[in-house]
Order: sequence, then C-alpha cells, then structure tokens
Amino acid sequence: MKSYLKMDRGELLREKAELEEEYKKIKALGLDLNLTRGKPSPAQLDISMDMYDMIHSGVALIAEDGTDCRNYGGMDGIGEAKKLMAGFMDCRPEDVIVYGNASLNIMYDTIARSMTHGVLGSTPWCKLDKVKFLCPVPGYDRHFSITEYFGIEMVNIPMTQDGPDMDMVEKLVSEDEAVKGIWCVPKYSNPQGITYSDETVRRFAALKPAAKDFRIFWDNAYAVHDLYDDDRDELLPIMAECEKAGNPDMIYQFCSTSKVTFSGAGMSAMAASEANREGICAQMSIQTIGHDKIKQWVHSHYLKDMDGVRAHMRKHAELVRPKFEAVEEIFSREIAPREIGTWIKPKGGYFICFESLEGCAKAIIDKAKQAGITLTAAGAPFPYKKDPKDSTIRIAPTFPDIEEMKQAAESLVCCIRLVSVEKLLESTGQGCA
Amino acid sequence: MKSYLKMDRGELLREKAELEEEYKKIKALGLDLNLTRGKPSPAQLDISMDMYDMIHSGVALIAEDGTDCRNYGGMDGIGEAKKLMAGFMDCRPEDVIVYGNASLNIMYDTIARSMTHGVLGSTPWCKLDKVKFLCPVPGYDRHFSITEYFGIEMVNIPMTQDGPDMDMVEKLVSEDEAVKGIWCVPKYSNPQGITYSDETVRRFAALKPAAKDFRIFWDNAYAVHDLYDDDRDELLPIMAECEKAGNPDMIYQFCSTSKVTFSGAGMSAMAASEANREGICAQMSIQTIGHDKIKQWVHSHYLKDMDGVRAHMRKHAELVRPKFEAVEEIFSREIAPREIGTWIKPKGGYFICFESLEGCAKAIIDKAKQAGITLTAAGAPFPYKKDPKDSTIRIAPTFPDIEEMKQAAESLVCCIRLVSVEKLLESTGQGCA
Repeated sequence: MKSYLKMDRGELLREKAELEEEYKKIKALGLDLNLTRGKPSPAQLDISMDMYDMIHSGVALIAEDGTDCRNYGGMDGIGEAKKLMAGFMDCRPEDVIVYGNASLNIMYDTIARSMTHGVLGSTPWCKLDKVKFLCPVPGYDRHFSITEYFGIEMVNIPMTQDGPDMDMVEKLVSEDEAVKGIWCVPKYSNPQGITYSDETVRRFAALKPAAKDFRIFWDNAYAVHDLYDDDRDELLPIMAECEKAGNPDMIYQFCSTSKVTFSGAGMSAMAASEANREGICAQMSIQTIGHDKIKQWVHSHYLKDMDGVRAHMRKHAELVRPKFEAVEEIFSREIAPREIGTWIKPKGGYFICFESLEGCAKAIIDKAKQAGITLTAAGAPFPYKKDPKDSTIRIAPTFPDIEEMKQAAESLVCCIRLVSVEKLLESTGQGCA
Repeated sequence: MKSYLKMDRGELLREKAELEEEYKKIKALGLDLNLTRGKPSPAQLDISMDMYDMIHSGVALIAEDGTDCRNYGGMDGIGEAKKLMAGFMDCRPEDVIVYGNASLNIMYDTIARSMTHGVLGSTPWCKLDKVKFLCPVPGYDRHFSITEYFGIEMVNIPMTQDGPDMDMVEKLVSEDEAVKGIWCVPKYSNPQGITYSDETVRRFAALKPAAKDFRIFWDNAYAVHDLYDDDRDELLPIMAECEKAGNPDMIYQFCSTSKVTFSGAGMSAMAASEANREGICAQMSIQTIGHDKIKQWVHSHYLKDMDGVRAHMRKHAELVRPKFEAVEEIFSREIAPREIGTWIKPKGGYFICFESLEGCAKAIIDKAKQAGITLTAAGAPFPYKKDPKDSTIRIAPTFPDIEEMKQAAESLVCCIRLVSVEKLLESTGQGCA
C-alpha cells in the first residue's frame, strides 16, 4: 500500500475517482451513527443495575457513623463515600468532599465561586482586568466552555506524549499573575488518552505561581477506566506530590462515577487541602443543605473499595476494549501506511484522537456527516473551538455496538482518504494546472 | 389564670420565684431536644421507603419518551417528572425545569448567574453599584444567607395575615431600579405558616418593576404540606396570574420533594416563562450535562400525579399534625391567657412562629438552650440575623417524637414565662426601686 505522500498527481487523481465511487456507496447505505460524545453503551449501564437491588423498603439507609442518609445534613459527604472516592483520587478520605451527580458541576461552581468571591480571600476574579487559564490542547470541550462562559482568556498549551508542555506551563504560571488556573485530564486524557508522566506530575506539584490564587484543576475523569488490566497507566498521586513540594493548596482534584455506574446519575467528588475545603464548605453551606446521601450510600456499599471498583471496571473494559481495538485495527491497516494521519493507541479512557493532515479535519467531519456519521464538531477540543491546524478529530467509540463501530470506522476511513487526496491535489495543483 | 400584663410587682415577683424553681427542675432533667430545623422525623422518611422497591435489576429505567434515564442527556428533565412538578407548582409541564436534589441550590444558582451574567441580557448584578432584595419578615434564613453572601442589600417587608405588605412592595419595586428581587414563601410561609391571599398573589402578578430584571423568587416549598385534608389553604397559581397581567417573565417558581420523599435526596424543580427558561438552560448547559434522571424516574413513577401526592402527604400529616396540635394546645393553655406572646395556628408547613413580648426572644432561646432545648438562633428569620423587636422564635415540631415535643413545649413555656416576668419586672422596676 503506497503512501499518499509519495503519489504523483496522476495516482492521486485515480485514487480520488475510486474513493468518490466508494463514498457514493457509503452514502447510499443511509447510515445514522453517532460518535460524538463519550457516553457508555446500554450494555455498560446494565452492568450496574444490581446496585439498586441493594435499596428497598427493608433496608436501613444509615451511614457507618449513624447518619440517616434519608434526611438533611452532612455537607461534605458520608464517611464511606469519602473513603471510596479517595481511592479514585489517590488521597486521604479526609481530603474529599462528596458532591452530587456531576464533577463538571463541581468545576463550574468552583470557577463561579472564584469569580464572585475569589479564592481564600483573594480578589474576586470578576473584579480583575484579566484572568487567564492554561488549556492543554487538544482537551475537553466542556472545560473550555466553562472558562469561555466566564470571560476567562484561554491560552493553548501543546500536549506531548508526557502531558502538557511543562516548560511553557512553568514559564507562564511563574511569570503571569493573571494566570489563575490550568485544566488537566491527567490520566487517559480527553481526547488523546495520554497519561501524564511522573516527571510531569512532579513539575506540576513544584510550580511556583505568580498568583497566590492559582489552582490546578486536576480532572481525574478516567482514573479507573483502564482497557487492559495487565497494562494500566499509573498516575503519580498529585495531592501527595503537592504536599511534598510545599504546595498543598495549589491543587483541586475532581472525579466521578459517571462512567463507572450511571452517567448523570452517579456520584462526584472533589479533593483539596484543608484550607481549600474550609473555603469551599463555607460557600457550599450557603448553596445547599447537602448532597444526595442515599446515592452516596448505595454507591459506596455497592462498589465497596478499590478492589470492588477494579473488578467492576473490568466488566466495562470487556465491552469497550473490542471497539477501541476495531478502530485501531482499521486505522492501522488503512491510514498508517498511506501516511494520512496519526493517533495514539490509548490504554484507557473514552476517546481516540485522530490527527489528520493539516487543514483536513473540518472537511472530513463534514463528509462523514453527509454519510450519516456524526463526529464531534471540528475544533471542539480547542478553546474558542479553534483548531489552529484543523487536524484534530475526536472519536468516541463506546456508545455504538461493535458492528456499528466497525462500519463507522471503515466509512470514516473513506472520508479521511478522500479529503486527504483532495488536499494533496490542491497543493500539487498549482504546478499542473 | 391572670394576664401577666395585669399583675403588679408583687405578683410578678412571686411568679418569678415559682418559675425559677420550676426551671431548676427542668434543667435537672438533662433534656437534649433539638427544635431548630425543619427536618422530617425518621417515621416520615419511612413512608417513602417503598419507592426504592420500584428500582431493581429487573426494571428498565426508560422514560415515557424513550430516554434512557441511566445515561447522559436531558438537560431540563424527563417528561413525567416535569408533569409531576407542574402539579406542585400549578403550571404547565413545559414551564418546568427539573433539577437535582435541592431547590435551595436552584435559587443560589439563579442568583449566582444573575450576579455574573445578568438576567436575559441585563447588566450583570456584580457590575452594579447596588442591588437590593425585598425580604418579607420573618422569613427563611437560608434565603437571606444567599443574598447576604452575594452582597445584596436586604430590605425588610413586614408580613401581614395576607402575605407581605403589598403597599410597601409595590412602592419599592416600582420606584427603585436597584430592587431586583423579592423572596417569597407563598404557602404556609416559613416560619409563620401564612398563605398569601388571592389579592396578594394578584398584586404580585401586576407589579410594575422599575428594573427590567426584577424577579419574584416564589419558593413554593410547602405546596402540598397540608396538615388538614379538609381544610387546606389554596394558593392562587402565580404563573397564570403573571401571564394574565402581561408579566410572564417576572416570576421564578421553585419547589422540591425534600419533605415529600427524602430530605436532601429528593427531586427539585423550577418553573419559569419560555424566555427565562431559554436563558437558564443556556447557562445550565455550561454547568452540567444534566441532572439525575434515575431519581426523576423513580419519583415520578412512585408519586404518579397530584392524587398520588395528596394521598402520600396525608401519611405525613398523620404523623406531623399531632405535634403541631400539642404545641397549639400547650401554648393556648399556658401562653394565651397570660398575654405573653402570640402565634398563628398554621394549617400546614413545617413551623410555628412564636412572637414573645418585645425584647424577650434572645433571652428565651438562651434559657431554653441551658435547659437542653435547642431552638433556631434568635434573629435567624431576619436579614443579617437582626430581629428588630427581638421577639420572633421559630419552632420546628416535626423531628422530635410526640412525647419529646410535648416535653419541649412545656419546658419552653416555662422559659417564656420566666423571661416575660423578668422583662415586665424590668419595666415596672424603676418606679419601685
């Protein structure tokens, strides 16, 4: 199979003609496949249904410390839920505040609070002329939507195989007092599936921010979402590293069971230093009388501990892994030898991130859309939805079934090839027009 | 039984000596009773435990429109939950947005959004020199905490038997552009148990605010919390009245099942006009991927409709009514004839609001505390915790059992009498010193 980069204009034109035929056939199939969002499949959701066998009228919903989970109170969560979520976040149970159904909501509220009330006594961000956040790219679109919504200026930080470009992070954080935060998905990052190296984590922990109210927003969304039980990425515990480095207050960690039990109906949590937790709870006690402790009870008694979580996640992996491997197999066969794109083979998480030839992502996504395959909008993994190279495509393989996923990947390959050929013809065009 | 107001100094001194003996005996009992918060009793929570018999591994958690309640999506709630909550709020299902576990959280978020982003395009409140809220008093302490937290100036509005003093409300709302909102608990108000009259509701709906972004915060917390099935207060539907008056956007309504099913683990909702809902959902789509639809599913399939809710609430009333009646009986017997306080006999809600002689509330609450009876802090039902007359005491009879409640009320009577005698002696003191 010949690399497109080595084809001459004639070869490319022949390839184009063939691909146009193939694309026509795909369109005729009338597909309707959605690869946009990282949603678990119904089969994955079925895994946790027996959780609800644990609650019924014969059960006392009493926490280990005697708290009646059916009544008001318990601002920061019941003990067993803290213990469980501490396992997700590799920290002490006392570091944890357990929240409601969504870690995104915690992150939003954290920024909203900083806007109106500052951080531990700092000037409210809404009173400052400029607030900036560093955004490793590609990243999670919903993070960027929050900072954009609050008028926070976002600065792109390139991702490397080891995590964000730490030279750039260190420079900006230490030199610019307007830099108040950085968005991180440190394990199986969204969308690339990269896990930050130990050195990256240590460099994060050792940051010397110009702004006293600078915080690392450590969204450990895929903490336990490994595809391979015997080949897991291990993330260095950031809280311990921050403590060692004398920066205990610099870190906010977030996680949830959204992709462990039920999406939108799971349990979320945050971990932070004692000083941070005090500041947070002071505000939270104005916002709510407490989060849903029945959900906390059932989640912690069902998943029990990290052994329970690992065993549970193996069931997810069995369903999800074949879909990731199907994409891997098809791309390796069809894309790699033609040299029209790259991707990282993730060992966990929810996405495969495809990097097309420059200037092709939007056209590929449009072509796929016309053939009935909906992908995350071009630019979505970037602040302001602007992909500077127009090359990043996020693929979410979990929701469709395996046959659909294969069909979608094969069809997507046709779109990628066709757009790549057109692009290459464009650049060879001038010489031959 | 002689009115204390008609006693001479000698009689008061004798009364005082007797009461001091009685108070000493009460203290010796070593009571530990908490009447601070409107919490359901464990027996009330037991009522709803069979709700969870409806969810187990054999059940499909699919909403009527086919939505999988276990997965992401459905920002504003599933159809059957909207329908149910519309019944609570006397509005159309399409007016409703269903949220998470706490209506307080919705109210907080509503104010927080207005602070940072304004209301439907108005200037963000945090950019204004002054923002004011009208606060009918006595009222709900947690409302006042929210506005205080955001630096909003609170203006006391006296309550009448028909609701807030509407002459004052109309004047302030129409003349002062800084007035952006008013807190209302329109049915069985917290803490007095007053239901707004039809005329009050119509005058609210017909307000002509100086500020385009003025909103009525209509916290219908006790919409279905009647003590007497055959003698219910009926509240005129505010949304329909606002529409009739050409003011559909002026109202936000809130409610929850916190005191219907589980406190802190129920379902909450907001009702608002189409324009308001659009503005709200635009922000909410940044804050969350959606609320817990499993909880929505189980609540709506369990309670079904307003007939179901009424039947369910009758079970609560059977448990709660005797406690309210015990307080009523004891106060009528011990307080009324002595003319040392007044209260309204509520037909629903969660509180009895006792009005002592002026300048006595704090002393009564302190004395009760020393005898092991914890009451809501003096001043709590007022903005900035300042009760101008130092006379309001909020009593929450639901949580203790009936015997405890009787004992607490009898003991409280002793404290009220003792402090009243001391107060009266103070004022007769000068003449006889």
